[in-house]
Amino acid sequence: MTLILGIDPGSRITGYGVVRDSGRSCEYVASGCIRTGTGSMPERLQMVFRGVREVIETYGPVTMGIEQVFMARNPDSALKLGQARGVAIVAGIEAGLDIAEYTATQVKQAIAGSGGADKEQVQMMVMHLLKLVQKPQIDASDALAIALCHAHHRQSLIPHGLVAAKRRGGRLRL
Amino acid sequence: MTLILGIDPGSRITGYGVVRDSGRSCEYVASGCIRTGTGSMPERLQMVFRGVREVIETYGPVTMGIEQVFMARNPDSALKLGQARGVAIVAGIEAGLDIAEYTATQVKQAIAGSGGADKEQVQMMVMHLLKLVQKPQIDASDALAIALCHAHHRQSLIPHGLVAAKRRGGRLRL
Repeated sequence: MTLILGIDPGSRITGYGVVRDSGRSCEYVASGCIRTGTGSMPERLQMVFRGVREVIETYGPVTMGIEQVFMARNPDSALKLGQARGVAIVAGIEAGLDIAEYTATQVKQAIAGSGGADKEQVQMMVMHLLKLVQKPQIDASDALAIALCHAHHRQSLIPHGLVAAKRRGGRLRL
Repeated sequence: MTLILGIDPGSRITGYGVVRDSGRSCEYVASGCIRTGTGSMPERLQMVFRGVREVIETYGPVTMGIEQVFMARNPDSALKLGQARGVAIVAGIEAGLDIAEYTATQVKQAIAGSGGADKEQVQMMVMHLLKLVQKPQIDASDALAIALCHAHHRQSLIPHGLVAAKRRGGRLRL
């Protein structure tokens, strides 16, 4: 049993998702959003830092997945996203978690079986895989998708898991 | 007497500079670089976080200035710079420092009297203003320039300081 944290960072809303990975399947533990409100930029970054730290203290995950961002719209939004992302990563590493990055394509591939899946499809698959009856907020759902992707890739590192994952076309073994 | 920290963040090298502001002049206290080496990205961000925290613990500044970045070359470098910048800011705010941002133009204006001054001119003025006999490393020098700019703007908030600053064309009262 491994508790896995997924983080979808943003300067306004940072989504988080926690899943319990038994090695054969993943269960939903928690998800939500850290909303940074209307304070100054340093205050908002502190809210991301403290929010991620609080999630870690509350649920005790040992490893964290975060989306690797390539294609921010412009340098200004990339800088703001980078700030929130750096802060979330440091909150994780300072709490002793190991951290892995995944591209959006890797996340979609792991969850929906196709790197070209749209946001809606990913959200539906997250609900299906974690047996959720309510649709999570989109940033929380994205964070759960990243946590599931991280669980999938961790399993793939185990030789048997790798074979099984390959046999199922890279989709999550759930 | 106020101890002021200036930070010039970067994903590879983060410069820091500490000056003591007496209200009438600034003295050099310390400066240097946090080099993040060749570890993973989360490890490098942790080095920035711990490095800034260590500088704060060592010298005890109460306020921090950091450069506001507008024109990163491209989204990818903006994201990397943002990560380091966010981490440096959180290290400061978590240590209880208040944080102010300055544009490159504001820094140049405060130090060299012209927003169009080049890096060399700023470095020479930093050496002159702080009576340094050796040229500091460029990132350390930039961080000292930001600290001096922050001292200048803090003084400007005092009514007398504002008048004096205006009379001297916005240059540092040193």
